Order: sequence, then structure tokens, then C-alpha cells
Amino acid sequence: MTTALSRDPSELLDQALRRHRAALARLITMIESGGDDARRVAALSYTSPPPYSLGLTGAPGAGKSTLTDRLITASKQGWHGRGASEIEPISQVGVLAVDPSSPFTGGAILGDRIRMHQHATDPDVFIRSMATRGRLGGLSLAVPDAVRLLGAAGMPLVLIETVGVGQMEVDVASAADTTVVVVTPGWGDSMQANKAGLLEVADVFVINKADRGGAHEARRDLTQMLDLSHLGSWRPPIIETSAAVGTGIDELWATVSEHRAHLVLTGELEPRRRERLARELRRVLSARLAERVEHLSEGEDFTDQVAALVAGKTDPYAAAELLLS
Amino acid sequence: MTTALSRDPSELLDQALRRHRAALARLITMIESGGDDARRVAALSYTSPPPYSLGLTGAPGAGKSTLTDRLITASKQGWHGRGASEIEPISQVGVLAVDPSSPFTGGAILGDRIRMHQHATDPDVFIRSMATRGRLGGLSLAVPDAVRLLGAAGMPLVLIETVGVGQMEVDVASAADTTVVVVTPGWGDSMQANKAGLLEVADVFVINKADRGGAHEARRDLTQMLDLSHLGSWRPPIIETSAAVGTGIDELWATVSEHRAHLVLTGELEPRRRERLARELRRVLSARLAERVEHLSEGEDFTDQVAALVAGKTDPYAAAELLLS
Repeated sequence: MTTALSRDPSELLDQALRRHRAALARLITMIESGGDDARRVAALSYTSPPPYSLGLTGAPGAGKSTLTDRLITASKQGWHGRGASEIEPISQVGVLAVDPSSPFTGGAILGDRIRMHQHATDPDVFIRSMATRGRLGGLSLAVPDAVRLLGAAGMPLVLIETVGVGQMEVDVASAADTTVVVVTPGWGDSMQANKAGLLEVADVFVINKADRGGAHEARRDLTQMLDLSHLGSWRPPIIETSAAVGTGIDELWATVSEHRAHLVLTGELEPRRRERLARELRRVLSARLAERVEHLSEGEDFTDQVAALVAGKTDPYAAAELLLS
Repeated sequence: MTTALSRDPSELLDQALRRHRAALARLITMIESGGDDARRVAALSYTSPPPYSLGLTGAPGAGKSTLTDRLITASKQGWHGRGASEIEPISQVGVLAVDPSSPFTGGAILGDRIRMHQHATDPDVFIRSMATRGRLGGLSLAVPDAVRLLGAAGMPLVLIETVGVGQMEVDVASAADTTVVVVTPGWGDSMQANKAGLLEVADVFVINKADRGGAHEARRDLTQMLDLSHLGSWRPPIIETSAAVGTGIDELWATVSEHRAHLVLTGELEPRRRERLARELRRVLSARLAERVEHLSEGEDFTDQVAALVAGKTDPYAAAELLLS
């Protein structure tokens, strides 16, 4: 017997808290769709404390999915930051796979998900691809909403994996507590376009596929870039991994845990989250006002003002003034 | 004796109508600065009929400045469109040289202006470089405003030359009655990134520096692209010129005149201008609302709402609602 899913966000969230995955998936679909549905989900999500969020970004083919898969396993061992107090293993992990270039959920990224084979049927792991479905504000609003939802649904850790290194992807991945930038030996060429942007958001660098050789040069390049940068109290460590064979993962997880402990101990976590929330609020404001322009452009008054412009009876500023009043 | 320039737009426009170039230059500076000054200039400009506007865009080094120089000379012969009624030679020509990548008037583009040597001291020609000076809405609002100002100042023809082939430049150049896309033999590589965008806005293609060889291949490439496109009632002609030595200019000017006649005779000019004014109005609305987001983000209420978000007492949508009300 199959039970029909509710359409009520609060009922769905109750079910999600009891690990009903389809209910959680429907809530994320509501977020992707935007509008009133997304607002109702946000009203439920933002009152719970945020989960710890970990962003992974890097060029396609850098092995982010395999790395994410390994990190899920590692997270179940708990946090082991050097200098940080040990905390309990993580009960549930949420994974958001984000492809800004794909307008709909599915496609290429779903193929990638298959690579997370270890956890595809794990009841403690929730994996979901995200797309915008054309909502205003796009993924830069939908992803933070989904992170908060997963937190409200009982997940203390959310991984956000993006597909590429474009500005949008970097924005999404960097809206996390800790951002991991994944490169491969010979990475320079593939990321040239956005090197500075990546350097700015990275809390941890990973040189994946390090077993293939060339890791030394990649490390030298990254070190030079870091030496030339203005760094805060945290210098992004460079970790070598071979996600496919599983080496370097423990060190990466320890480093991520260490960054988390650093944020907590230095008191940097709170201002970081505050700045992120302020940015989200500005984005919602922009999206709302963009909706208003759309709406205004479709009205009769707009047509009248364009006619007045054609007739030389007004100018665009006076016309806008009139439409806004 | 030097007379101090007025700061009153309407006085300045009176002076500009008497060919006082410094007054006209000051009015354009007011447009570049945005704000109330720009609005006051617009209120004076948009009540006059628009001048005929001719946009030139193409990769840097394609010879647009030299071509513009030649077109100024040609325009003084009047319009000679085949099938179009002859009209009187153009008394005054305005030229706007636009470089979106340069934040201030001056720099590289001023060097280019020197190449328009024939007309630098011609009292019938007004040449001006434009930059945004950081005004909201940028050049996509400032340039149309300047075109209308030049029309109100008595110029029946305005040439708009942009420096590159980025989206911004194409947007600016294509906001003209006739848009000329300038390529050179071997152009494919330099424009690859925005080929489709250029094809869409071109009313006339010019293969400049045709004397250097390779013009045949360039023509073949353009013809193939046009054959694959959905064209309206006008198929963009391809003209070969060598602006530096002056060949092909008469044919180019005749073709531009023909396009102008086509727009008038088919009745396409009016809906084209109407659509452009509607786009401008939408841009002003967006700019005004962006100003509002800026303004809202600086207020105390915004800080309060961010604090409420940090405390888990609201969500970004409810917070935005409250700020907008």
C-alpha cells in the first residue's frame, strides 16, 4: 500500500524528521519551485539552528563525487580536529549536488550520483541533485534554503557539491561554513579563468588524483598563490588525495574538522553566518523587486507609458517614477 | 574672455542648439553622472524626435574609428538609398565612442579619437567618448539618453561606436536604428565567443581591411551563417571596405541608407523604436529598484532583520516582506 504524500510543508517536515525520504525530497522540490511553497518551507526551516555545511567545488572531472562519497564515510567517524574537542559521529548526512548549467534536476549529474554507490541505499544519507526550475533568485537562494531545510530535518552535516568553477558555482559552494576547492595535477589550465575567485573562497585545497603524478607541481603553484595572497588567521592547507583508491581521505577529513574547530574557537563562525544571511536577505530583496519589474512591465500602465514615450510626451525617468508610485 | 558655463540643463541646451560644443559636452557629463542631473537632461531630450542612430560594433583593431571617420564624410552627401527618396545632406553629425571596460572617459579610446583627424575641428561634427562614472544602469541607459540629447541639440544623425564585442558593447551598439557589425578577414577567431549575438543584431556586415586578402573566406563564412539563420524581411548585406584607403565607403553608406529606407517604407522603424523605449523603461525601473535594495541594505531595519535571522526568529522571505512593507 502506498500512501499519498501530503502537500502541507509542516506535515512533510514531521515525516522527514522520521526519515521519510520522499517527504524530504518533496520539500526540496517546493524550494526549487520558488514562490509561496518555497516561502512556507523557509518559514519552517530557518527557526532551527543551521547544520554545519561543507562546500566542494572544482573543475568537472576533478573527482568531486568520489571525494564526496569518501567524505560521507569519513563523517560517520565524527569530528577529529586536532585541537578541537572530539564530538560524536554524525548520525545523518545530507548531500546537495548542484549544477547551475542544467535547468532541470537530472541529466548528467544524476549519472554522477551513481558513483556514490556506497551510500545510495544508506538510510542515514540523503543525496539530492538540485536545479532551479526557473525560480527567481535561482540556486543562490534555493541552495541555502535547502541546507537549512536539511538542518531542520535533523541533519547536522550538509555537503554541497557543485559541478564546475564558474562564478555561480563558486558562489554556491562558498556559501558554506567550510569550502573545499578540488584541483588535479595540471589543474592550472582548466581553472585559469577563475583562479582568483577560487583562491578567495578556499578554506582547504585538495589535490585529487595525486597518485597520477604532477602533484608536486600543483602544490608548488598553490603555495606560490597563497604566498602572494592576503590571508586571514587561517592559511588554507593543501591536502593530497586519491579519492578513487581512498588515500588521503582521513587527512582531508581531519583538516576539515580542524577548520570547523578554528571557526568555532576563534568566534569566526558567527560573523561568517551573519554575513551569509545578510547576503541572502539582499538576494531575496533583489528577487522580489525583479518580480515587481516583471509585473510592472506586463501592466496596462506600462503600455501607456511606452506610448507616451513614443509620442515624445515623457522620458523614461518620469515614466518610471509614475509606474513606481 | 571665457564665459562660465551654466549648470542649468535648459540653458545649456539652448547654447548647444547654437553649436556651443562645451555646453553639449557638459550635458553629456550630466548624463554620465546619473541621478537628478541625468533626469533633468532626459526631460528636455525625450520630447524632441529621435535622431537616426547608426551603431558600429566589432572586435578591437577592426578599424571602426577609421570607418566612423569615413562615414562622417559620407553622411554629408545625404542619404542615397536605392529606392529611397533622396534627402538633404546631413548638417551635423554626433559621434559617441563607447568603451564599457573603461570606468572613466579618456584612456585608450581618446587615442582612437585622434584617428578621426579629418573631423576633429569640424564645427558640424561633435565627437565624444562616453563612460559610466558608476551611474546605476550604466551605459545601457546613458548612451540612449545621449543619443536623444544629440537629437534634441539639432543633430539628425548619431553614430555610436563601441570598442569590443562583449555582450554589453553589442547591447549598446544594437540599440540603434541600423547596426553595422565590422569584421576583418580572419575575424572568426576574435569573435568566436559572441558570434551568435553579433549575427542577431547585424543589419549590415562590413569586412574591413578587405585589401589584405582573406576577404573571400570571411564573406563565405558570413554567408553560411546567414543561410543558417532565420532572417526577417531584410537580409544583412555584406560590404567589403578598406577604410584606411577609403574604398567601399560609398557602397557602405548607400547600404546603410537603403536599410534606413527599408525601415521607413516597411513601417518597421516605429515598432523597433517602441521596443527600444520599452526596454529602456524596464532598465530604468530595474535601476530604480536596485537603488532601493542598496538603500534598504544600509538601514537599521535591515540590521535588525539580519539579527532576527541569526537568532532563528525569522526567515529571509518574511524578513524581506517586512522590509518592503
